[in-house]
Amino acid sequence: MRNVKIVCEYDGTAYHGWQRQPNGLSIQEVLEETIGIITQEKTRLTASGRTDAGVHALNQVANFRTGSTIPCGNLQKGINSLLPGDIVIKDLQDADDAFHARYSAKSKIYIYRIFNNPVRSPLRRNWCWHIRLPLDVNAMREAAVFLEGTHDFSSFCAAGGDADDHARTVTAATIKKEGGDISFSIEANGFLRYMVRNIMGLLVDVGRGIIMPSEFKVIMEAMDRTRAGITAPPQGLFLKEVRY
Amino acid sequence: MRNVKIVCEYDGTAYHGWQRQPNGLSIQEVLEETIGIITQEKTRLTASGRTDAGVHALNQVANFRTGSTIPCGNLQKGINSLLPGDIVIKDLQDADDAFHARYSAKSKIYIYRIFNNPVRSPLRRNWCWHIRLPLDVNAMREAAVFLEGTHDFSSFCAAGGDADDHARTVTAATIKKEGGDISFSIEANGFLRYMVRNIMGLLVDVGRGIIMPSEFKVIMEAMDRTRAGITAPPQGLFLKEVRY
Repeated sequence: MRNVKIVCEYDGTAYHGWQRQPNGLSIQEVLEETIGIITQEKTRLTASGRTDAGVHALNQVANFRTGSTIPCGNLQKGINSLLPGDIVIKDLQDADDAFHARYSAKSKIYIYRIFNNPVRSPLRRNWCWHIRLPLDVNAMREAAVFLEGTHDFSSFCAAGGDADDHARTVTAATIKKEGGDISFSIEANGFLRYMVRNIMGLLVDVGRGIIMPSEFKVIMEAMDRTRAGITAPPQGLFLKEVRY
Repeated sequence: MRNVKIVCEYDGTAYHGWQRQPNGLSIQEVLEETIGIITQEKTRLTASGRTDAGVHALNQVANFRTGSTIPCGNLQKGINSLLPGDIVIKDLQDADDAFHARYSAKSKIYIYRIFNNPVRSPLRRNWCWHIRLPLDVNAMREAAVFLEGTHDFSSFCAAGGDADDHARTVTAATIKKEGGDISFSIEANGFLRYMVRNIMGLLVDVGRGIIMPSEFKVIMEAMDRTRAGITAPPQGLFLKEVRY
């Protein structure tokens, strides 16, 4: 059986997240059904990880086994021709038999976008968290530094997340600002459920002066979800890259 | 009566263009009805010009007369609180009595975006014209230079456009490229119906090597719409700025 690796881009607005579920349409379901039409097989995709409802991906990686002998280029074109406009396969390659989109991943990079402006932006409404009150980005940067390194991120882990071990290693956490557009980028060897959105919620508390950067560190080290802030909305989050 | 100037941003995807019409919802209608709820008057908006169905605006300018005494800040907030997510008033100010959004305009700037990549992009699908085959951007730039200056733009004017005089003065026509993202910017003292999209259609013919830059000039100077190429699709077009 071939082991096929795909890289996907999707607009998550209309979906109940990556993972197949009984109560709503998922990106996984659309991809699996569409691949199945082309390969004439029941297809099961393994992704680098799930993305939640409304979250987007620039480069989600997944793999599937197939007995099909259709060459990669034609397989990709055939599937893309049947996929809806909000999902596409950007790349499709045969991978080593040992390749596993989730277990082989060394790190992932997420981007979270904020639009910080008194007036909301129609053109950004599905791609940003709109925050009216001014944010102190330097204070947010000061807090973000505390994320780097290996920590127990329980304070940022959703209740009901399925990981037992909440230690993750963050290799980079940076914030860019261009006018009202603020972009938070975080790379780690793994992410807990809602981790980026919960971090973002607390970073915004720092930016609004509700807590000090030093308090961000205290809350992070408390390893207690009830201490941290709100969960940032999904539409600002993008899975940017998976590194192998 | 006050003369109120507004600057609007909108995502044109869901609308039948700026101008009120019997057969579909327009941005003008939504704005007029919403302003009317706040001012308690029948409101008539004058815009810098119409935008076509599916075309977006970063800064459309319009003005309206009102007897309302609501201060500008409150008027803007009140209207914005009732507008749908795809339309917003970015700025609202009292203007001189003589201000007329259309006749007072000195120039307008439009942007047209192309995504030039073998694979389409879900996240760009409502904001770009997707072109698979590689475009020669330098050839397109060479052709775009011919647009600058005062010309009769009949070759780029839609049949049924209502202007008698097809002469316009283009003060800048530039093309930026960043990876697959190509952005054409054009400033002129006025635009004919479909002018930017018709120019873009022919510039893409240049980029694909179907015609030479010198032929672009010949077709432009022919002042004959039947000589030029296709009309580029609306979703790549943005009214960026109106200068007064």
